[in-house]
Amino acid sequence: MRKLIIASTSTLHGTAYLEYLTDTLKSHFQGVTKLVFIPFARPSGISHDAYTEKVTTAFAKLNIEVVGLHTFDDAAAALTHAQAIFTGGGNTFVLVKELHERNLFPVLLDAINSGTPYLGCSAGSNICGQSMQTTNDMPIVMPPSFQTLGVLPFNLNPHFLDADAQSKHMGETRETRIQEYHAFNTTPVLGLREGSWLEVSDEKIILKGALTARWFTPQQSATELEPETDLTKM
Amino acid sequence: MRKLIIASTSTLHGTAYLEYLTDTLKSHFQGVTKLVFIPFARPSGISHDAYTEKVTTAFAKLNIEVVGLHTFDDAAAALTHAQAIFTGGGNTFVLVKELHERNLFPVLLDAINSGTPYLGCSAGSNICGQSMQTTNDMPIVMPPSFQTLGVLPFNLNPHFLDADAQSKHMGETRETRIQEYHAFNTTPVLGLREGSWLEVSDEKIILKGALTARWFTPQQSATELEPETDLTKM
Repeated sequence: MRKLIIASTSTLHGTAYLEYLTDTLKSHFQGVTKLVFIPFARPSGISHDAYTEKVTTAFAKLNIEVVGLHTFDDAAAALTHAQAIFTGGGNTFVLVKELHERNLFPVLLDAINSGTPYLGCSAGSNICGQSMQTTNDMPIVMPPSFQTLGVLPFNLNPHFLDADAQSKHMGETRETRIQEYHAFNTTPVLGLREGSWLEVSDEKIILKGALTARWFTPQQSATELEPETDLTKM
Repeated sequence: MRKLIIASTSTLHGTAYLEYLTDTLKSHFQGVTKLVFIPFARPSGISHDAYTEKVTTAFAKLNIEVVGLHTFDDAAAALTHAQAIFTGGGNTFVLVKELHERNLFPVLLDAINSGTPYLGCSAGSNICGQSMQTTNDMPIVMPPSFQTLGVLPFNLNPHFLDADAQSKHMGETRETRIQEYHAFNTTPVLGLREGSWLEVSDEKIILKGALTARWFTPQQSATELEPETDLTKM
């Protein structure tokens, strides 16, 4: 009964917030009139209220009302009874800390498993993997655990970035960082480029968007996956 | 009595490992015949032995013998009695986890405070700050704490990278990430570009190399610091 859109990014360069996903979201949230928004990732450190305001404006175009999870006295009940749930991007450490400290991961997972349509972007997508250990974010706060929802049988690297052959910068490339992850962990990692998303229907996981995605497993060369690839059994 | 070189990177594009620091290291390690190398950051996941081998080759040119800290039965004693100490780059989470789990942070700090010449590059520089919370690395392992040596009264961001105005990538810029850090923390952050290093002599902290460095404090615009800036009182 699962129904998720798990996107690399909320925004493509030169377009409005969530604009590139408009048609997808119309279909994904069909019949939904009110959505619970999880603003905990606080991009650029903005407040929960300011972030919810931004999302409210974007969803007004889809005629969907937005309520911030932070405004509920009982956040668990709010998730359980939500028509739909959206977790926005920002800092994954901040998001995961808040969800763990409020014990909301099991509640969120139950809501997803019982069929509540879910949208995640960036950090909100990261938490659908086995752990947040392939995030690009800085550890600006310490969460009690790196474990996340585990809706996907692998980890995500959102905003996946190919190495720039012209660059003279000596910091590790994204690919090297993911390879370092595999020196210590066996969970596969999907590098999801901006413009790609995963569509999860029941148990099925399909790569969507026009781009290929990069698939990393321990001790093997990374491979490119074509759009419409079925990742269910990978 | 402190004596440290804290470098953004071990390697500049197109040059050999540590090559750009040759003259600096000759002077810094004058009289040193044997150096203890801390290989725990394991760049690209390489073994402690392989990493130590690479560093041994580089220091042979300076006529300094290198011994990996992992080869000692009593690592604490090895640090205490070392003529000099070098911590190499790699993954900061892996490095900090190992140092915490072996209770080596206090011992390393004592050695530094008693005048043992220290060299850090990248992750090995990161640990000289108040915490590792402004690292660029992926959280591929979970350290028990993000606290580090605190030799510097601020945090470092090694391999500091300016935003590319031409980029269409929507992932957070380095500057945005550091600003997010300051939404939750008050410790100042020094963005140290590749080719810059800090020279610490007793209590004095001087910016070295040809480049400016970027200085971040909470709720203020970042500023550029010229080479030879004295950061002692900042």
